[in-house]
Amino acid sequence: MKTVEWAEDKIRIIDQTRLPGEQVFLELDSYDAVAVAIKEMRIRGAPALGIVAAYAMALGAQRIEAETREEFLAQLHRIGEVLAATRPTAVNLFRAVERLEAAAVGESVAEIRSGLIGEARRIEAEEAEANRRMGALGAGLIEDGFTVLTHCNAGALATVSYGTALGVVRAAVEQGKRVHVFATETRPLLQGARLTAWELSQEGIPVTLIADTMTGHFLSRERINCVVVGADRIAANGDVANKIGTYNIAVLAAENSVPFYVAAPTSTIDLSVASGAEIPIEERSPEEVTHIQGVRIAPPGVEAANPAFDVTPHRYVSAIITENGIVGEPYVERLRKITGQRGGRHG
Amino acid sequence: MKTVEWAEDKIRIIDQTRLPGEQVFLELDSYDAVAVAIKEMRIRGAPALGIVAAYAMALGAQRIEAETREEFLAQLHRIGEVLAATRPTAVNLFRAVERLEAAAVGESVAEIRSGLIGEARRIEAEEAEANRRMGALGAGLIEDGFTVLTHCNAGALATVSYGTALGVVRAAVEQGKRVHVFATETRPLLQGARLTAWELSQEGIPVTLIADTMTGHFLSRERINCVVVGADRIAANGDVANKIGTYNIAVLAAENSVPFYVAAPTSTIDLSVASGAEIPIEERSPEEVTHIQGVRIAPPGVEAANPAFDVTPHRYVSAIITENGIVGEPYVERLRKITGQRGGRHG
Repeated sequence: MKTVEWAEDKIRIIDQTRLPGEQVFLELDSYDAVAVAIKEMRIRGAPALGIVAAYAMALGAQRIEAETREEFLAQLHRIGEVLAATRPTAVNLFRAVERLEAAAVGESVAEIRSGLIGEARRIEAEEAEANRRMGALGAGLIEDGFTVLTHCNAGALATVSYGTALGVVRAAVEQGKRVHVFATETRPLLQGARLTAWELSQEGIPVTLIADTMTGHFLSRERINCVVVGADRIAANGDVANKIGTYNIAVLAAENSVPFYVAAPTSTIDLSVASGAEIPIEERSPEEVTHIQGVRIAPPGVEAANPAFDVTPHRYVSAIITENGIVGEPYVERLRKITGQRGGRHG
Repeated sequence: MKTVEWAEDKIRIIDQTRLPGEQVFLELDSYDAVAVAIKEMRIRGAPALGIVAAYAMALGAQRIEAETREEFLAQLHRIGEVLAATRPTAVNLFRAVERLEAAAVGESVAEIRSGLIGEARRIEAEEAEANRRMGALGAGLIEDGFTVLTHCNAGALATVSYGTALGVVRAAVEQGKRVHVFATETRPLLQGARLTAWELSQEGIPVTLIADTMTGHFLSRERINCVVVGADRIAANGDVANKIGTYNIAVLAAENSVPFYVAAPTSTIDLSVASGAEIPIEERSPEEVTHIQGVRIAPPGVEAANPAFDVTPHRYVSAIITENGIVGEPYVERLRKITGQRGGRHG
């Protein structure tokens, strides 16, 4: 099962809001249908957003009717703007849009269109390859018998297959290590309970679901050997924006001397932001907090806040696992080295 | 509205599992009906458990048929054992049972029975008075314009009226201070979303509901001036057992230099346990984690853990607000002084 699949005149995704109860596939036949699906979190996860946005650019380009090359590029740019306006935190979305615009070269419109599809396929292939390499490298940090705490879903569903944080777990299991995962449910949208528990159960990897309130209890009682999470954007100094609640776990892990690892492809590293303070944090609808799966849990009229991400300062991050190596402090030099980026707007 | 009401041949409680959707009152006409209601969390909160257990002893005593005084006391003891076996963490339950047993004195059965009702009423009155005094004292820590973070429900519903942590907020509001409360939803049983948000909304005290994952984000962004929570049991060294997730907030508050206060009557302090490590932590049904309000959120067959409490080491506790004064480190001497307890089994 692939999270995102290109089918020439449409993009096929699994509707992640319906999991684990139902496996519903959506066929998105326009770039704006993709934009809506992203906003509604039918597809989510930083690498997956990059891939689907790239294909949405390629799909949108098939329909552009333009007299001139300039008009074609202007319309492609507007498609990119619509996609980039869906969610502000994960950098992969912006980077994919920029890569696709940069790839819009060729003699004819047909050639440009085909080049865009090729670039989207390259992004997908790069992410798949990065997941595998990250897994192989990160698995070295997981010992036989480890219990790993993870948050949200940084699995196959967040990328195109295999996963970032869960890719590390999968690789360790493939190496014959016994690994038990503690998965936080991850309120408000329950990606841990719905997606991570589901992915791991499907593969027979032992998983224990806990409420987000329980992380400190288990970290303090020596039940957890290490934490591995994904990332939505990593700043030049190693600060990590990830699903709301990640910062809580990082602080509690540090307080209890439990290593806290972030597994993320270099496509998630954004040297154009110096620190986490510059990363925009998406604020989503209060209804995601006042309701759970459509059931109201709070009295009518109660105000709720809903920041979708938080920032974990780099001092709490034991190491960042990327496809190009595992890096620790000092992050500024090391992140620059492994990304080959020089900073500036989205590298 | 009173959380617990004695009505001679029955005990009236509001069913807290049905709030805020419905206000359903239950009339419990036997001590074992009370035991079931406690287990099912239709009534919860350390002081409320003490009060309802005391009345359940008095109610059970009305029905005892005994030939001798010894037989009467033996049956009363068995009633106490049933009540004490309902939930292991909150100390008030055990202390109430012990107080009622100690109050079973008198010339006739009628006199003993009436003495038991009197003792239960005394416990209720003491708790109500303690709430008021705690509120008046604790309000001195809350400045005009403060935003207070609280967890679970330490309000009127957790006692008999007014509340412990929320009593402090109410007293500050009564003093004319503007106070805004951030209430965590408190998974798994959502006491924050269902009960705290409801109590505060009813009184027009501004409240913002947040998911448990969001506490660190708001503590780190200077949105919270102090934390005030209740307690289920406080050990002799100041370690605090309270609703699961309290420890997370305490560590995050310390990390961000935000004061962390515990508001609890001296009836919650148990000098017979030297430290939090000795406090038994109740493990509840995994279904409370895999389901929310009856709706399944995790795939079938997934294992879940469900510790109902955690222990916050005293080094994270800025001060404990009691009806006899506000105390800080060193807790061992100061808690002994304000309780007048000398240690030993349940003081």
